[in-house]
Amino acid sequence: MPKTEKEKPVADSVVLVSGGLDSAVTAAIAARLGHPAFLHVNYGQRTEARELAAFDALTGRYKIKNRLIADIAYLSDIGGSALTDRKIDVPKGDVGRKDIPPTYVPFRNANLLSIAISWAEALGAKAVFIGAVEEDSSGYPDCRREFFDAFEKAVALGTKPGAGISIITPLIHMRKSEIIKKGVELAAPMELTWSCYKDSDMACGNCDSCLLRLRGFKEAGITDPLEYKK
Amino acid sequence: MPKTEKEKPVADSVVLVSGGLDSAVTAAIAARLGHPAFLHVNYGQRTEARELAAFDALTGRYKIKNRLIADIAYLSDIGGSALTDRKIDVPKGDVGRKDIPPTYVPFRNANLLSIAISWAEALGAKAVFIGAVEEDSSGYPDCRREFFDAFEKAVALGTKPGAGISIITPLIHMRKSEIIKKGVELAAPMELTWSCYKDSDMACGNCDSCLLRLRGFKEAGITDPLEYKK
Repeated sequence: MPKTEKEKPVADSVVLVSGGLDSAVTAAIAARLGHPAFLHVNYGQRTEARELAAFDALTGRYKIKNRLIADIAYLSDIGGSALTDRKIDVPKGDVGRKDIPPTYVPFRNANLLSIAISWAEALGAKAVFIGAVEEDSSGYPDCRREFFDAFEKAVALGTKPGAGISIITPLIHMRKSEIIKKGVELAAPMELTWSCYKDSDMACGNCDSCLLRLRGFKEAGITDPLEYKK
Repeated sequence: MPKTEKEKPVADSVVLVSGGLDSAVTAAIAARLGHPAFLHVNYGQRTEARELAAFDALTGRYKIKNRLIADIAYLSDIGGSALTDRKIDVPKGDVGRKDIPPTYVPFRNANLLSIAISWAEALGAKAVFIGAVEEDSSGYPDCRREFFDAFEKAVALGTKPGAGISIITPLIHMRKSEIIKKGVELAAPMELTWSCYKDSDMACGNCDSCLLRLRGFKEAGITDPLEYKK
């Protein structure tokens, strides 16, 4: 059948792909299950350009035709986080801390999910994948499955009858080391990912995100393909 | 006490101000109750510039110091609605229709609310006001209180403990004529508002939004300060 202008590539899911390790493994899971569309969101975070480069590399590797980059610079106008506000320092990592760290971006995941759900509804896709991790995360309230369950109920009520979009969090109860092992199992291209919150040339090795990643590779007994400053 | 650089104007609520009639009356209610911050969202809708002008006029009238304009052009990239996609016509109004009209923007209100909640959390405000109307609306699923209740539960779980942000929908069960009477009672500047979905120079008088507005003024026995093409 000849391709017409109206013919659009099929997508049965939308995956939020930040360009980090967790999103790459989530993308690998979605790609194994069907035909995902990849969504990347720029929100004025310090390492925006580096994360976008990782997203581009991942869409290329998975030959994704449905890709969307959403700019929501307003999150840095709103401020309140060390990730988007240059006046607040990214702290040296402390993965054992109990309080919510200054890298928390207020209600960020709801903003990301709302974009993903809007796109899924327009595409007719039935699932949104997000690589959030509950136990091994930094204590952000919007990374817990409890939050995603509540959001999913709002989705059921706020989309067209029959839209039936689920929020799938395949990594939610995994440790970083388990995610890395899953990545190896699925041949997820972990060398294309970027995790550092602070730097864009070479990972700092000191921020929460770098520390979690390094500890995960160590626990998994696998060598991290990225280089670090320290 | 001398003003320091760090001193920020207090805000106890965030109001979503599209620039339409309902949002102006909602803003009047919030201004009567406390010190609102005004949020406007551009989402690539046809009448974006005209709505922004109405927002500017309303912030001026209410002397609002905390104002934010968020651009989410991705909603028009996503498409799927006559409001954002120039290839889909805005239908002539049919306010008695039972199905969801082509002006529905997929999951739009969740995108707007997520921005408002993020900003409220950063400001320490305890309420978000949105001028959604359930019964007199066009059948959009994300305009029902049931949806806002579900979203509010997601907010409680996805923000910092103690953030305690409510979603207030003061017009949700009002008819357009009641909203207009409330606007007159509160001296809301209805002459500064813009409701038309289609045109920006003079309201078309034909789209759903114009028809609802015109019918509301007629039922209320009040003269609409705006001019119409027909």
